[in-house]
Amino acid sequence: MELNNVKLAILDIDGVVIKGRTPIPEAVEGIKILKEKGINVVYLTNNSTRPRKRLAELLGDIGVDISISDIFTSSYLTALYLDREADKDVRIFIVGEEGIVFELEEFGFKNLFWSNYEPPIDYVIVGMDRNFNFQKLTYAQQAIFSGARFIATNIDPTFPTENGIIPGGGSIVKAVETASKKQPVVIGKPEIVGLKLILTQFDIRDPEEVILIGDRIETDLIAGKRLGCKTGIVFSGITSKEELEDLEVSWKPDLCGENLLDLLGGDDYEDRI
Amino acid sequence: MELNNVKLAILDIDGVVIKGRTPIPEAVEGIKILKEKGINVVYLTNNSTRPRKRLAELLGDIGVDISISDIFTSSYLTALYLDREADKDVRIFIVGEEGIVFELEEFGFKNLFWSNYEPPIDYVIVGMDRNFNFQKLTYAQQAIFSGARFIATNIDPTFPTENGIIPGGGSIVKAVETASKKQPVVIGKPEIVGLKLILTQFDIRDPEEVILIGDRIETDLIAGKRLGCKTGIVFSGITSKEELEDLEVSWKPDLCGENLLDLLGGDDYEDRI
Repeated sequence: MELNNVKLAILDIDGVVIKGRTPIPEAVEGIKILKEKGINVVYLTNNSTRPRKRLAELLGDIGVDISISDIFTSSYLTALYLDREADKDVRIFIVGEEGIVFELEEFGFKNLFWSNYEPPIDYVIVGMDRNFNFQKLTYAQQAIFSGARFIATNIDPTFPTENGIIPGGGSIVKAVETASKKQPVVIGKPEIVGLKLILTQFDIRDPEEVILIGDRIETDLIAGKRLGCKTGIVFSGITSKEELEDLEVSWKPDLCGENLLDLLGGDDYEDRI
Repeated sequence: MELNNVKLAILDIDGVVIKGRTPIPEAVEGIKILKEKGINVVYLTNNSTRPRKRLAELLGDIGVDISISDIFTSSYLTALYLDREADKDVRIFIVGEEGIVFELEEFGFKNLFWSNYEPPIDYVIVGMDRNFNFQKLTYAQQAIFSGARFIATNIDPTFPTENGIIPGGGSIVKAVETASKKQPVVIGKPEIVGLKLILTQFDIRDPEEVILIGDRIETDLIAGKRLGCKTGIVFSGITSKEELEDLEVSWKPDLCGENLLDLLGGDDYEDRI
C-alpha cells in the first residue's frame, strides 16, 4: 500500500511508541520516516489520566520531534468536544482523575465538581478514577436522572500499569451506565467522536487521507475501520500476529509489522497479514 | 386459571407485600387465601442487604403468618448455593454489605474477606455495597483473574430507598464483570439459580406446580417464564397495567391484578391482561 495520499498519521502511544516506560526505538525511526514523507504525525491515547505536557516531554526525551499540540488524550478530546458543544458556564460533575479536571480548566470551564456534588449538573464526565466509590456513582446517577448529559472519555475495560492490570475507565463507565440506564457519548477509541475532532483540526474531510496506527484490535483497528481511514497494527504492544490472522478479511488492517519501522519498511507487508 | 395443582407460591416482597415500609393490606388477605387453598407461601427478594430475620419480623408485624425459613433473600440463596457447591474452608472475597457476610457465616463459612484482601481467593461474591470503591473493584478483578469463581447475588441496576433511587447491586456487578472480563453466576431473579434451590428445598420437580408472583417484568416475570412456572403480576409496585398490555403474548403472566387479593379474587382476571 502506498502512503502517497496520506496527509495525517494518528499514532497510539502505549504499545506503539512506548511500552510501559520503555521507548520502542524502531518507533522513533518510523516517526522520522513518516515526517520525511511529509505526513503530519499526531498521537492519540485513550488514557485520560496523564497530562499532555508530560506525554510530550516523555516522547521528546526518547527523541521524537514533538510539540504538545501533537498530543491528543481522551480527556483533552473530551474538553475539546465540550468546548464545541457547551457554554463555559455549564456545571460539570467529573468521575475521573486530575487529567480530566486539568484539561477542562485549560478550556476555561469553571464549574467543575468531582468530590462534592451541587445540582444542577449539565454534564457528567466519566473516565478512569482510582478514587471511584459508591458516593460518586450515586452522584453521577442522580445528575443523569435529572437530565445531565453523560460523556465517557473512554471505555477501556482494563488499565495496564507497571504493577499489573487494574480496572479501567470502562468498568467505571459501565457502573454509571447501569445505574443511570443511559448510554454515554464515548470520546475515545473505538468510538470516533474524538477522531473526528482531530480531522476537523487538520481540516481533513476525506478519512482516506488518514492512517491510524495502533496495537489493539478492539480500540485502534475498530476505530480506524469505523472512521473509514487506513489502518495499521503493530505487534509491539497487545495484539499478536496470530490474533490478526484470525480476523475476517474486512477487518484486516491495511498494514502491519513487528513495530512501526517494520510496518512502514518492507514492500511485502501486505503479504504478512 | 385454576390454582388447583399449585403447591407453592413464591412471592416477591417489595411492591407485592409492602411498599417502602408501608404494608399492602390486600396482600395480607391474599396470603391467607393462598394458605386456605393449601398452597405453601414463601418470599423471595433480590435485596441482598436485609437480614431474613428482620424481614420475617416486618411481615409478622403486618399480620402475615410467617417463619424465618419462609424468607429467601438473594444473599441467603447465595450462601445456600455455596453450601451445595463448596467446602466450608473456601476463601471468599465479598463486595457487599453485612447481609451477605451474615448469611455465609450462618452456613459455617469462615474465611471471609470484605475490606481487606488475602489471596488465594476461591470465590468472589458481588452484591449491593454502599461502601463500594475502586480498591474493592481491583481486589475482585485480581481474584477473578487468578481463577476465583464469580457469583452475583443479583443484577438489579437500581435500588429503591425511602430517599429515592440509588445504584443497585447490578451496577457494581457490571463494573466487576467489565474489569475482570468474566460473566458471573447470578443467583437472583431474572436468573433461576436461586429459584431452583427453593424448588429443591420443597422437593418440587414440576415447575408447573409453582406460581411466582411479583411486580417487575424484568425480574419476576422473566424468572418465572424461564423456570416454566406459573406467573402473576400485581400493579401495586413498579409495573403498570399499560406496560403489561405492551408485552408479546408469550410474555404475558398467567394472572394479574391491582394487588395480590385482586389477582386471586375475580374469575375474570384472564380478560384483564
